[in-house]
Amino acid sequence: IDSRLPDVGTTIFTVMSRLAQECGAINLSQGFPDFNAEDVLFERVAHWMRAGFNQYAPMAGVAPLREAIAHKVAALYGTAYDPETEITVTAGATQALFTAVAALVHPGDEVIVFEPVYDSYAPAIELQGGRVVRLQLAAPGYRPDWDAVAAAITPRTRMIMINSPHNPTATVWSADDLARLAALTRGTGIVVVSDEVYEHIVFDGRRHESCARDAELAARSVIVSSFGKTYHITGWKVGYVVAPRELMAEFRKVHQFNVFTVNTPVQLALADYMADASRHEGLAAFYQAKRDFFRAALSGSRFELLPSAGTYFQLARYRAICDEPDTAFVERLTRDSGVAAIPVSAFFADGRDERVIRFCFAKNEATLAAACERLCRV
Amino acid sequence: IDSRLPDVGTTIFTVMSRLAQECGAINLSQGFPDFNAEDVLFERVAHWMRAGFNQYAPMAGVAPLREAIAHKVAALYGTAYDPETEITVTAGATQALFTAVAALVHPGDEVIVFEPVYDSYAPAIELQGGRVVRLQLAAPGYRPDWDAVAAAITPRTRMIMINSPHNPTATVWSADDLARLAALTRGTGIVVVSDEVYEHIVFDGRRHESCARDAELAARSVIVSSFGKTYHITGWKVGYVVAPRELMAEFRKVHQFNVFTVNTPVQLALADYMADASRHEGLAAFYQAKRDFFRAALSGSRFELLPSAGTYFQLARYRAICDEPDTAFVERLTRDSGVAAIPVSAFFADGRDERVIRFCFAKNEATLAAACERLCRV
Ligand SMILES: CSCCC(=O)C(=O)O
Ligand SMILES: CSCCC(=O)C(=O)O
Repeated sequence: IDSRLPDVGTTIFTVMSRLAQECGAINLSQGFPDFNAEDVLFERVAHWMRAGFNQYAPMAGVAPLREAIAHKVAALYGTAYDPETEITVTAGATQALFTAVAALVHPGDEVIVFEPVYDSYAPAIELQGGRVVRLQLAAPGYRPDWDAVAAAITPRTRMIMINSPHNPTATVWSADDLARLAALTRGTGIVVVSDEVYEHIVFDGRRHESCARDAELAARSVIVSSFGKTYHITGWKVGYVVAPRELMAEFRKVHQFNVFTVNTPVQLALADYMADASRHEGLAAFYQAKRDFFRAALSGSRFELLPSAGTYFQLARYRAICDEPDTAFVERLTRDSGVAAIPVSAFFADGRDERVIRFCFAKNEATLAAACERLCRV
Repeated sequence: IDSRLPDVGTTIFTVMSRLAQECGAINLSQGFPDFNAEDVLFERVAHWMRAGFNQYAPMAGVAPLREAIAHKVAALYGTAYDPETEITVTAGATQALFTAVAALVHPGDEVIVFEPVYDSYAPAIELQGGRVVRLQLAAPGYRPDWDAVAAAITPRTRMIMINSPHNPTATVWSADDLARLAALTRGTGIVVVSDEVYEHIVFDGRRHESCARDAELAARSVIVSSFGKTYHITGWKVGYVVAPRELMAEFRKVHQFNVFTVNTPVQLALADYMADASRHEGLAAFYQAKRDFFRAALSGSRFELLPSAGTYFQLARYRAICDEPDTAFVERLTRDSGVAAIPVSAFFADGRDERVIRFCFAKNEATLAAACERLCRV
């Protein structure tokens, strides 16, 4: 078979989660909570199922959910999106990103991404015949180099894909970063695709610099978010996209023939649940406490902890422990020490290995304590 | 904006459902039931949510659901699929079809489809740079012309997309049709993508001729089905794909970066629910009774009813009523007579209009009776 994509193998998230299970290790690899969402959310799903709302939702999503999203985005970031023409509910953020690329990238177009980069971006671009232009976020600060971005822009640049708060580095872009991005793309045909799935998880009083804070930048941005990270339901696979009308029209052309629409009772339940803003307002403090607990519990270890400014991830260098490649190290850590993590080299096309691994701290304190006890012995 | 797809407008299903709502008409247009699924299914979803199964499922789907699918397909059609490597759960059949095309059709490849054709097939092909080769199923029999298929096959033919039981014509292919298809594609590199979402809805003692009945044909087939049509949950958007290992490997390369995976508690609930085969075994008789009721109630009308051998659709010619274009006729029918239907011209790229409309009879008897009373007055 003549493949359309290179052999990508099994994603590192699945590989590590599976190995963790095999070894009975504590799984701090794939990013998901080990605690449950709230019963009231499940009750709303059950309510809408029993009430008979089990048939097709409208293509863009049920109206109350789109209205709730519009309300939240306007309240937080100040840009008003029309629920009818500028908001679409998706089968998760990954599907939103894939669809945005399919709708907007033509064969031969260039798309700038920043490495380390989430594993779905490049294949989505390559499948459409686009060319992936990789810029580097260098350890330990992982700041974007805006002069390098300026130099990478060509007449063929169609899109820049960004992600803040950033997976896996746990960095959060500043208002200045967004201003540089806005300046560099002003007056060009470049579309910004902004993956903001960790928008509510920023620490130490930082604020999330959404593209929706700058009306002028928002006018050329497709902003993607997710309910999975915000409401502890990564397995429900519901996300959304906001974008100005003309970009959303293109998005929907593909969305309509890709998934068409998303689980109806789940959408209605999320609309009910979102009515209470305290749910996401409390999230940053909730995860900041976990981050602090995790870092404190590792202070006696030989891991060097990098800053974690947002997301539910913590990077750690292990040079003081050994100089093994990160893929070998995480395997040994899982097997011998009983804690699974993600090797950050998996986020680089060339496998660049800075001897850094990623832990997910979206776990109960007991889980984190047990993991740290093991990690302190390494 | 330089569009990747032509302006497809709003799908006819949404247009007609919306018009039905606006006019307070009985909605026999978009295909979905107006009765609810069983409480036990909802209880299983609620169970798995409360039990904390709300995080990412494995990429291919939860193991019990893949095993249940393997069991069903083997029992009904005789082909054994390996749940590990040959079965993938999808966010609906539409996503499965889109992904299969994205994974297997290269720019310049030809894909044969049969018109009238479901609205998502051609855009999926065009988006990948494939060429849509349209063959006609001619009214009133809507049988495939296998000599025309033979003549349409070229060295560039990469795929044939089929659909039996067929939406919108309600025809069901015979074993002979499948044998002709198998013969024509034997020894070629052509992949058959078989949309079998109405597999359990065949009438009058017919049997569904799945590609999985012929091991040799199955070896080059990607078979798509859906839980929406079988369990009255079109709005849950869960389907699945079975395919031989090499084709499935290609499918998953794209699936992984498109939706990645599907709602976990819903998958676990479906696995529980599928354990009782009576659920789908009773479906054909259930819908046959509705078809018979609907046809009998229309016998006094001026509509000419075409045969309905499967699906939950019924085609009707209205030449005895008027000679309006079908799009104008369904609009008038909705507004003036209070019954919404789908114009079959929407399934033809050139809008071919044979003065035939499609009714969905997946409705309670009271709904059907009220609709037929109105239709008899037209
Ligand atoms: C596709 S599962 C990945 C979950 C995640 O976002 C991560 O671990 O980075
Ligand atoms: C995308 S909604 C369409 C439902 C359906 O399959 C039909 O009405 O034919």
